[in-house]
Amino acid sequence: MIFRQLFDRESSTYSYLLAERPGGEALLIDPVLENTNTYVRLIEELGLELVLAVDTHIHADHVTALGALRDRTDCASAMGEMTKAECVSVRFREGEKLCVDNLHLDILYTPGHTDDSYSFLLPDRVFTGDTLLIRGTGRTDFQNGDAAAQYDSLFGKLLTLPEDTLVFPAHDYNGMTVSTIGEEKRHNPRLQAADKQAYVDLMNGLKLDDPRLMDVAVPANRSCGLKTAA
Amino acid sequence: MIFRQLFDRESSTYSYLLAERPGGEALLIDPVLENTNTYVRLIEELGLELVLAVDTHIHADHVTALGALRDRTDCASAMGEMTKAECVSVRFREGEKLCVDNLHLDILYTPGHTDDSYSFLLPDRVFTGDTLLIRGTGRTDFQNGDAAAQYDSLFGKLLTLPEDTLVFPAHDYNGMTVSTIGEEKRHNPRLQAADKQAYVDLMNGLKLDDPRLMDVAVPANRSCGLKTAA
Repeated sequence: MIFRQLFDRESSTYSYLLAERPGGEALLIDPVLENTNTYVRLIEELGLELVLAVDTHIHADHVTALGALRDRTDCASAMGEMTKAECVSVRFREGEKLCVDNLHLDILYTPGHTDDSYSFLLPDRVFTGDTLLIRGTGRTDFQNGDAAAQYDSLFGKLLTLPEDTLVFPAHDYNGMTVSTIGEEKRHNPRLQAADKQAYVDLMNGLKLDDPRLMDVAVPANRSCGLKTAA
Repeated sequence: MIFRQLFDRESSTYSYLLAERPGGEALLIDPVLENTNTYVRLIEELGLELVLAVDTHIHADHVTALGALRDRTDCASAMGEMTKAECVSVRFREGEKLCVDNLHLDILYTPGHTDDSYSFLLPDRVFTGDTLLIRGTGRTDFQNGDAAAQYDSLFGKLLTLPEDTLVFPAHDYNGMTVSTIGEEKRHNPRLQAADKQAYVDLMNGLKLDDPRLMDVAVPANRSCGLKTAA
């Protein structure tokens, strides 16, 4: 497998390039608009063909490259069936798979950070978007976020994966690049909540400022990051 | 194997934590002083015992955590025999190995960026310090840097490794986290130089500003990042 974790320093976003083999089909998860040239160059250098660009959810902190990549490479752009982004060419649902060559990622519906949040699972690793972060979880106070739903996504789905499953989130702000399910179970402070109500109280008490780019990013991402006529 | 790539955003430095197994001995490559607490906490959470902290060379762009980690964890601190850091507890040379439990890293002497630059090799990956960067190479214009020596380190040693060897450098400024030897051979612009003289001319013509922290970092790193009496 070809696997590349790519970091956007401005928004602390991790994007992930995956392919089964050199020269084969490629998948890009959570690409950032400003890095489109970097992705396209890397994909060319690796001799890959980008067939699918996917967002785990509608991001509020950066503008997606889904539209730009579709324009540049003719790839499909995909988000979950719950998304309000009308521009995507594919809508997936839990139980389906994202496929490039013989690489198949299982799709999990993991709402809570937003109501259109999905995670993608390979046998040894999971891409958790903003649902499960390293030593944190995604905020649940906008875009139909729901702390109780996030608790169920975490404890009912992600944390039931094997403990050595690698966790690759959509962001990290502290220089960490990867974790494991077991490590997060034991050391993620938010996952130490006694029960669902304690988790909901914790999340609803955070009182966070809105993301700096939210008023720009959310409308832009509903059109896959492409400018629309006013 | 436990493997963690850690990023220092201020200096764009990658540090690497390695261990053979949970609960075992750990090795830390190129740790940054400001992140000492992060390393110590992560090592504790993973149940590891830090036995060795290593710098690939005397860095000019950040202060090392070698001394702080020795104070905090009683680990050994190691650099190559060519180093001017008098404070290290272990000096290694090419042909020797860095060992934690049954994980053995081969030591390669790869001067050029500095005269004390070393690389560390596992069967599937190499830690290249500032000798080989992703789509770049370390500057050779201070600390006894030598472009001709770097050419020999690159073409005579690192680029002779199997093409699928993963390349983990000490820095990246463009959001890349890893490359391979084959990819760098083909797509690293500096490695397209026609011969040694062309490489030397290219490197000597760069006219780079000194690193912002150079006047602080180099003296500090000669004492392993620990403050010394004036």
